Amino acid sequence: MTPHRPLACVILAAGKGTRMKSDLPKVLHRVAGQPMVGHVLSAVRALDPDHVVVVVGPGMDNVADAVAPYPTAVQHEQRGTADAVRAAFGLLEGFDGDVVVLYGDTPLVTPDTLRAMVAARRQPGDPAVVVLGMRPDDPGAYGRLILNARGGLEKIVEYLDASEEERQVTLCNAGLMAFDGARMFDLISRIGNSNAKSEYYLTDVVQIARSNGMACAVVEAAPAEVVGVNSRAELSEVEKLIQRRLRKAAMDNGATLTDPDSVTFCVDTRLGRDVIVGPHVVFGPGVVVADRVEIKAFSHLEQVRVDSGAQVGPYARLRPGAEIGPDAHIGNFVEIKNAKIEAGAKVNHLTYIGDARVGAKANIGAGTITCNYDGYAKSHTDIGAGAFIGSNTALVAPVRVGDGAIVGAGSVVTTDVEGDALVVARGRQQAYTGWAKRFRERKQNEKAKKA
Amino acid sequence: MTPHRPLACVILAAGKGTRMKSDLPKVLHRVAGQPMVGHVLSAVRALDPDHVVVVVGPGMDNVADAVAPYPTAVQHEQRGTADAVRAAFGLLEGFDGDVVVLYGDTPLVTPDTLRAMVAARRQPGDPAVVVLGMRPDDPGAYGRLILNARGGLEKIVEYLDASEEERQVTLCNAGLMAFDGARMFDLISRIGNSNAKSEYYLTDVVQIARSNGMACAVVEAAPAEVVGVNSRAELSEVEKLIQRRLRKAAMDNGATLTDPDSVTFCVDTRLGRDVIVGPHVVFGPGVVVADRVEIKAFSHLEQVRVDSGAQVGPYARLRPGAEIGPDAHIGNFVEIKNAKIEAGAKVNHLTYIGDARVGAKANIGAGTITCNYDGYAKSHTDIGAGAFIGSNTALVAPVRVGDGAIVGAGSVVTTDVEGDALVVARGRQQAYTGWAKRFRERKQNEKAKKA
Amino acid sequence: MTPHRPLACVILAAGKGTRMKSDLPKVLHRVAGQPMVGHVLSAVRALDPDHVVVVVGPGMDNVADAVAPYPTAVQHEQRGTADAVRAAFGLLEGFDGDVVVLYGDTPLVTPDTLRAMVAARRQPGDPAVVVLGMRPDDPGAYGRLILNARGGLEKIVEYLDASEEERQVTLCNAGLMAFDGARMFDLISRIGNSNAKSEYYLTDVVQIARSNGMACAVVEAAPAEVVGVNSRAELSEVEKLIQRRLRKAAMDNGATLTDPDSVTFCVDTRLGRDVIVGPHVVFGPGVVVADRVEIKAFSHLEQVRVDSGAQVGPYARLRPGAEIGPDAHIGNFVEIKNAKIEAGAKVNHLTYIGDARVGAKANIGAGTITCNYDGYAKSHTDIGAGAFIGSNTALVAPVRVGDGAIVGAGSVVTTDVEGDALVVARGRQQAYTGWAKRFRERKQNEKAKKA
Repeated sequence: MTPHRPLACVILAAGKGTRMKSDLPKVLHRVAGQPMVGHVLSAVRALDPDHVVVVVGPGMDNVADAVAPYPTAVQHEQRGTADAVRAAFGLLEGFDGDVVVLYGDTPLVTPDTLRAMVAARRQPGDPAVVVLGMRPDDPGAYGRLILNARGGLEKIVEYLDASEEERQVTLCNAGLMAFDGARMFDLISRIGNSNAKSEYYLTDVVQIARSNGMACAVVEAAPAEVVGVNSRAELSEVEKLIQRRLRKAAMDNGATLTDPDSVTFCVDTRLGRDVIVGPHVVFGPGVVVADRVEIKAFSHLEQVRVDSGAQVGPYARLRPGAEIGPDAHIGNFVEIKNAKIEAGAKVNHLTYIGDARVGAKANIGAGTITCNYDGYAKSHTDIGAGAFIGSNTALVAPVRVGDGAIVGAGSVVTTDVEGDALVVARGRQQAYTGWAKRFRERKQNEKAKKA
Repeated sequence: MTPHRPLACVILAAGKGTRMKSDLPKVLHRVAGQPMVGHVLSAVRALDPDHVVVVVGPGMDNVADAVAPYPTAVQHEQRGTADAVRAAFGLLEGFDGDVVVLYGDTPLVTPDTLRAMVAARRQPGDPAVVVLGMRPDDPGAYGRLILNARGGLEKIVEYLDASEEERQVTLCNAGLMAFDGARMFDLISRIGNSNAKSEYYLTDVVQIARSNGMACAVVEAAPAEVVGVNSRAELSEVEKLIQRRLRKAAMDNGATLTDPDSVTFCVDTRLGRDVIVGPHVVFGPGVVVADRVEIKAFSHLEQVRVDSGAQVGPYARLRPGAEIGPDAHIGNFVEIKNAKIEAGAKVNHLTYIGDARVGAKANIGAGTITCNYDGYAKSHTDIGAGAFIGSNTALVAPVRVGDGAIVGAGSVVTTDVEGDALVVARGRQQAYTGWAKRFRERKQNEKAKKA
Repeated sequence: MTPHRPLACVILAAGKGTRMKSDLPKVLHRVAGQPMVGHVLSAVRALDPDHVVVVVGPGMDNVADAVAPYPTAVQHEQRGTADAVRAAFGLLEGFDGDVVVLYGDTPLVTPDTLRAMVAARRQPGDPAVVVLGMRPDDPGAYGRLILNARGGLEKIVEYLDASEEERQVTLCNAGLMAFDGARMFDLISRIGNSNAKSEYYLTDVVQIARSNGMACAVVEAAPAEVVGVNSRAELSEVEKLIQRRLRKAAMDNGATLTDPDSVTFCVDTRLGRDVIVGPHVVFGPGVVVADRVEIKAFSHLEQVRVDSGAQVGPYARLRPGAEIGPDAHIGNFVEIKNAKIEAGAKVNHLTYIGDARVGAKANIGAGTITCNYDGYAKSHTDIGAGAFIGSNTALVAPVRVGDGAIVGAGSVVTTDVEGDALVVARGRQQAYTGWAKRFRERKQNEKAKKA
């Protein structure tokens, strides 16, 4: 057994993201329902690292909250990527395992790529630095990675400094790096800022390592994996890329997406086999859908569990805490929040069920409302198995309707209903013969007078 | 007049579709609202064939149900396409007209292409076999169609067996074939299974025909017409292609689609002239929309007829059996099911109308519900012409509201209302001065005590 | 200071648009919520012209209404573009400034391009005619612009008349022209109709000017700017182009569009900074959204102002005259029309608020309806600050609910409620023990008898 070699990950997240035009730090902008830095952390977590440090800018407490329990280090001034990594040194003092440096605004990087970087770092030849490369369709102004005869990385050359020959190189710098921790602190400390912007660039580390006779290596990733985000337009491009991944995965797992491009997933959406998802469906975080469920068009789900065989939508809004039982039906213009809808129950039209249980095979009529809030607290509604709630009923919580009870249409139920009882709570119908005719005549006369 | 030459069509639908990861046989997966095999049958029906046989796998009773009244033959083991065609022999015994072989998972083939295949079969030279060809952008690993000097088909060569020269050929095998029935049974019976998978391949028929001096021919189709489906991702690609066709046809006929890519059609959707369809509209099966109708965003229609000048949506859900009369208005968060909404009637907000008639120019207030179900049976609601139903009213069916009657807001109507009458069925308003203030004080005190 | 040189714009809008298959004149078809001719007028207005004339066909009063207060001239027969410009001569009599001729079905032209055309008209050399050119990806059958050695325009050659060499030219005629008014009337009057269709073509003007020794010039525009619309499919292409512009502008200004392709804008939509727009949102005309607002999926807004920090949707429909105050919440299946929702108020579920004010921090329960219409007139509902409206309540307007009042669930409020009062207006709950059980037994017996 090889001895465990410790791993640390440093995530650079101090950038202000001026071009985002936002009060929110850039790495907190969301893709697929999760802040960008959360995606990076997910990738990092898959490697089970011994240390993770997130480098933030001053005052970015919301980033610190978002990445907790991982510790943050503060880069006080924006003086370049090497300076940012140095900000993490304090939290990594004495660490001599491998260190991977990532970017909080590059959310599509995969665990496989990170593993490949670590593996390359540990390969024979013991490179001090591993740089992630990519071959974009249009290399444009990216820095180029220049290899030596043995396939090692010789230098990173910025586009502006590159010779014509170097510009022909298609292998570009993707930014992420892995280091041997035992050498990293010294190498990075020696990076200077004698350049136009007086900034400390992490890319300079390669030159320093090479001039000290240390090997450097390259690992390649698909360009789509290392797309960075500097504007809202780029954010939407990254969103599109990750949605494409998620849609493909859902279909590969045996779900039908009638119009995949119109379905929005979160990273953690889980769909079973023979699930059918209609057009225009939005999955927020925390959705688990079992087999043979149909989610019809225009549905919106968030923190919800849907059991096998259930029918949802169209126009169903399932909010956090909804649990839809097997073969239950949730229909159009129905909102369910923090409520358990048990097996085979039906909530088909224009209804709000909040803080409630709807028993098995109960039938909830159109326009039913659970009145769960009195302005101060939320209360619970309990509807028994096989109960029948007539349309346009208000159930004023806390209240229980027993198994098999029937509530007449248009009722306001304020006290418990015993099982198998009928309850009615509404006014008596009174008719006024000819009244409508007289009303119309009066209105027409008024109009005639005005004219 | 040329004598009628009989035509038979054999549709191969026995494939399990393992990569679909589904309990549903592959050909029953739907595109544009119809099972794939239904699309193939529609194309076939346009040729008015004398016989149609669908070859299914064992236990595929649901496919047999879906293709009824056409007969099915069972292929007991999956032993190749030639074996599948042989399964149909029993039902075609003695048939000596033309036979077209199609695939249940290739749903985009058009009647014109099938007609061209049959015409090619009957052309001078009397080819025993006609193979459908295509020229895909990337011929990749498709089998190549090798022609002879006279333009006839000499052989089909699988990509793996093809020479470099043969691989340069861009004409590929699309799979569909037409046969002279008088020779087909013998030719196909002679196909062997001496190959890697020990399967009987229909493509071998060309070589057998040629070695017996029979002519073979090729007809070309657009690659998009013969896209086959083996996975959910491919299913979604086919869906996209057919939606594109349907959207274009709707626009060519004089409908405006504000955002065509966001509108989902069924194969049988019919839209009139000067119809405007907003973004994000879903048409299920059986929708007919007359001229000058506007279907606003987020509407969902299924088995519905909408008359000229009507306004629908946004967020209107018209379910089976809804008939929307001329110039009627159906507004937001409104569900109509099995109901006739007559000329000029308005159902504008948050309403459920099921099993009902709404008379001409009637006005249905927001939040109106027809209570059509008592847990056992559906009952009918009849609302007369010019009636006015106040908001938040429940109409408990069976019930009639006469012409010109007015129902007060918040009523529960349980008995018939005569024409021109006013009816009110609700509680009396009672006020408790200062109660709300005391309630708040009490709540605040409780809070204070807890803290 | 250069003396003001007057400018006139002539917009040709007489085409019937047969291929649109519409009763509506072509230029009245809408893109981004505005008739095409309105887009052209917007571009023209940016140049602050002294005269604008819109040339329409006979009977196109609806076009005249749409372009008012700009005057229209009628082209009585469709005899070509030169004939159409001549129809405007009467309204421009004696005008000797610059004249720009545009097309009502080319809605994407920008003010910058028009300015460039006018500037080119006034450049040294004093060209009599300036023609707008473009270089489309596929020049196809467009007329080609042939330049002379000095870079001036020598002739416009129709594709059918062009030599092989001329067809190699990639600079094509985009149709728009600018003229020296002092020479235009004479030049255009001399255009003949000796051609296949016996029509008067404006393009002939170049040849006439050149043969009289006058200079002509070219200004280039991006092909996307001069896409013309002749069919509904082309209308949707133009819609797509303009939506792309609008989405990009919104993102550049600091709004996040989760799925930009699913958001439909109008030309005048204004979004603030840190606005988040979810998937599938439709903006009709006249929407202004302040900073830090979230518009969730499936929302539909039209003529609405949303203040900073407000939350809207999902499934919110904000109709004309809705004003959503700072930090107010509008939830799902909620319709707001002509109503002011003040700061921090909550209208979260299944509600219709029309012709109303909802005071600051008021809480409107699910299923609340303002009954604003009696079949003849709309009346107002006023809900005070901090009021609490119980669920399923109908408020029969005109009616006032005082500050801090509470309305019990399921009430029908017909008379004013004083501040801090509790009001309840509903039936008393009555229970019938065992009734439901007996009902079910009876129903089951009936079923058994039938069987």
